[in-house]
Amino acid sequence: MAALTFQLEHTDNNSKARAGTITTDHGVIETPIFMPVGTIGSVKAVTQQQLKDEIKAQIILGNTYHLYLRPTTAIIEAAGGLHKFNGWPKPILTDSGGYQVFSLAENRKLTEEGALFQSHIDGSRHLFTAENVMDIQRSIGADIIMAFDECPPYPSEYAYAKKSMELTHRWLTRCFTRFNETEDKYGYSQNLFPIVQGSTFEDLRKESCAFVSSKEATGNAIGGLSVGEPEAMMYDLTALCAENLPYNKPRYLMGVGTPWNILECISLGIDMFDCVMPTRNGRNGMLFTTKGVINIRNKKWATDFSVIDDGIDCETSNYYSKAYLRHLFVADEILGLQIASIHNLAFYLWLVGEARKHIIAGDFKSWKTSTREIIKQRL
Amino acid sequence: MAALTFQLEHTDNNSKARAGTITTDHGVIETPIFMPVGTIGSVKAVTQQQLKDEIKAQIILGNTYHLYLRPTTAIIEAAGGLHKFNGWPKPILTDSGGYQVFSLAENRKLTEEGALFQSHIDGSRHLFTAENVMDIQRSIGADIIMAFDECPPYPSEYAYAKKSMELTHRWLTRCFTRFNETEDKYGYSQNLFPIVQGSTFEDLRKESCAFVSSKEATGNAIGGLSVGEPEAMMYDLTALCAENLPYNKPRYLMGVGTPWNILECISLGIDMFDCVMPTRNGRNGMLFTTKGVINIRNKKWATDFSVIDDGIDCETSNYYSKAYLRHLFVADEILGLQIASIHNLAFYLWLVGEARKHIIAGDFKSWKTSTREIIKQRL
Repeated sequence: MAALTFQLEHTDNNSKARAGTITTDHGVIETPIFMPVGTIGSVKAVTQQQLKDEIKAQIILGNTYHLYLRPTTAIIEAAGGLHKFNGWPKPILTDSGGYQVFSLAENRKLTEEGALFQSHIDGSRHLFTAENVMDIQRSIGADIIMAFDECPPYPSEYAYAKKSMELTHRWLTRCFTRFNETEDKYGYSQNLFPIVQGSTFEDLRKESCAFVSSKEATGNAIGGLSVGEPEAMMYDLTALCAENLPYNKPRYLMGVGTPWNILECISLGIDMFDCVMPTRNGRNGMLFTTKGVINIRNKKWATDFSVIDDGIDCETSNYYSKAYLRHLFVADEILGLQIASIHNLAFYLWLVGEARKHIIAGDFKSWKTSTREIIKQRL
Repeated sequence: MAALTFQLEHTDNNSKARAGTITTDHGVIETPIFMPVGTIGSVKAVTQQQLKDEIKAQIILGNTYHLYLRPTTAIIEAAGGLHKFNGWPKPILTDSGGYQVFSLAENRKLTEEGALFQSHIDGSRHLFTAENVMDIQRSIGADIIMAFDECPPYPSEYAYAKKSMELTHRWLTRCFTRFNETEDKYGYSQNLFPIVQGSTFEDLRKESCAFVSSKEATGNAIGGLSVGEPEAMMYDLTALCAENLPYNKPRYLMGVGTPWNILECISLGIDMFDCVMPTRNGRNGMLFTTKGVINIRNKKWATDFSVIDDGIDCETSNYYSKAYLRHLFVADEILGLQIASIHNLAFYLWLVGEARKHIIAGDFKSWKTSTREIIKQRL
C-alpha cells in the first residue's frame, strides 16, 4: 500500500525523451508506455490472456462514464473492484468521464457543481461532480484516478478556454480535497493525476501547468490535445506542457495518437499514452506494422501468405498470414477483428518498448527518425 | 499418406455406444468426437490457439460452398490448402456444399448434372456437380471430403424423398468415380465419406444405408436429420441408420445437435458430430455448462461472481465470472462472444471426452442418464 513512485532511469541527450519505471501496488510499468483502452471493462475483441501474453500490456484503461452506467459502480464494488471483476491483475487507470459526458451523453449541462447528463443508453439522468467522480473511481478500484475536467473543443475562443480552464482548476481542488478525505478502497494504493487544460493558448497552458504542478501529485496528465488541432500545434503544446510539468513525475498525454505521434511525443518528454486507435482502426482493417501501414481489405493482400508482421514478438502477428486476415475481413468473420486488434496493440507496445531500449542505448533520436519513415509509409 | 483408419477400442454392453480412434495423416481423433464448425475457414470468434489449447478440438469443419465463394478455391490452392491458409494443423472435414446451396443460395435449380445457383453474396452464377465438388474439396485439402447430396426438407412426401435419394445415389457413384480418378492434392491422404439420405422413411433409409455401405468408404455419414422432425423420430432414424452402416467404420451424424442429442446418439452408435449450436447459441448468450443451461443475459447473473464453469478444464471457463460475461453481453462487447463461444465448444468437447471415458469404463449408460438430467436443466 505504497503510493505510486516514478524512477527516472535514463534521459536522452538529443531530445527530451526519458526511460523510467512506475511502481504501483499492482506491479511495475516501464516507461514510455502505451496503455490499451478497455473502455467498458474489456479491451475490445481481446482476452485478458492475450493482453498479458501476446500484447504484453503493463497497464490498461477503464472509463468512469461507461463503467458507472454499465455494469454500474455497485456491481464493480460487489466484485471487489475492476481488477477482480474483469480478471486483469496489473495496474488500471480510469479516465474521469468528463470527456465522455461531453462527447457521448445527451442533454448535458455544465454547472459549477458538475455535469448533468442523460445516459446515451437509456436516457436516465445523472450528475457527475468532482466529488462523486473521485468516489466512483475509488469504487472501480483504479490504481490511477484521473481528475474531473472539462475538455474544450477545438477550436475554442480564448475567453471560453480560460473560463473552462478555471472551472477545471476549481474542480481539481475539490477532487484533491475529496480524494484526500477518502481512503484506498481495496487495500492497494490509489493515486490521483491532475489534468492540464487551456486549449491552444500558451499562456493558459502554462498557467494550468503551474496550477497542476502545485498539487504535487504522483503523476500529471495533459488533456485537451489531439482533438482536431493541426499536428504541429499539438506537438508545440505538448512540448510546452512537458517542460512546465515536474521533471521527476510521469507525464501522461491523454488520447494520443498515431504511432508517429507517440514517437514524437516521447521525444518531447511524455511517458504515458493511451488511444483507441490501435483497436478501433484495427477493427476497420487498418494495421500498423514494422514495415508500414496496411489496409488489409485491399486486394493486393489476397494472396500474400507472409505473416502479418514478423518484426514483433507476438504469436498472433507471427502466425496468421495477411491473406488469411484479409479473407476474414472480407467474409466479416469476428476472428478478423480479434487478430487485427491483438496485432495493432502488440505493435504499439513493441513501439514504446523499442523507444525505451533506444533511449537507454543512447540512439533514440536517430532510431526515431528512421523508424518513423518506415512505419508511416503505406504498403 | 495412408488412408484414414478406424480402430474400435471399446463397445458398451448396455447400449450401442463405441469408443474408437480415427487415424489421419493430420493426427489421431478419439471418438466419439464433436467437430467445431469453421464454416468460412474460421470457427467464429475463436482463435486457432484457443481451439487447440482451451477447447482441445481434434478436428474442425470447413464448408465447400462458403470457401469456394470466399476466399475462393484458387486462393486456398495458392496457400497450399486450408490447413496452411488458416493455420489449423489437425484434421479438417469439409461439408460438400449441397446443404448450403439449398439453404443459402438464390435461384437454385436442381438438375441431373448438379445444382445451379446464384451466390448469396454477389448473385454470381455457379454450378456444383458431383465431380467439381470433389475437385474443390481436393483443392481445399480436406482430410475428409463429403459426398455431394441433396438434403430433402422436413416433411417431404415419400415420392419426393425417394426421387431425391436416388439422385443422391447417382451423384454418389459419380463422386466416387471422380474421387478415385484424382489424387491426394497435398501429399496427405484425403478420404471420401458418403451420406445416407431417405428423409423420414425407414425403407428408404435402409436402402440408402445399403447403397452407401456398398461403396466401402473409410467412413460413413447420415444426413437429412435434425431438420425439423420430432426428436424421437430423429433418434429412431439415427438408430436405424447406425445399425445398417458398417460396424467397423466411423459413423458421422451430420448437424446434430444439443448436448443431450449427442449423448443419446452416442448411445445409438454414432462416432462423429458437428453442429453450429455451441457457437451460434453462445453468441446469443446461451451457455451449456456442467451444471445446466444458462441465459447469461438474465439479470440473475449480474452479481454472480463464480466462474462460468469449474466443471471443465478450460482456462476461459475457469477464469471469467458469470457476472463479467453478463456485463460483456449487456454492453455488446465482442469479448462476450469470444468467451461464450470458447466455453460452449470446450463444453461440447468435454462432453464427448467424458462419454468416451465412461464407455471405456463400462458405466456409460448410467452416466449418460444422470448427466443428461443435470446438463439439460435451466439454471
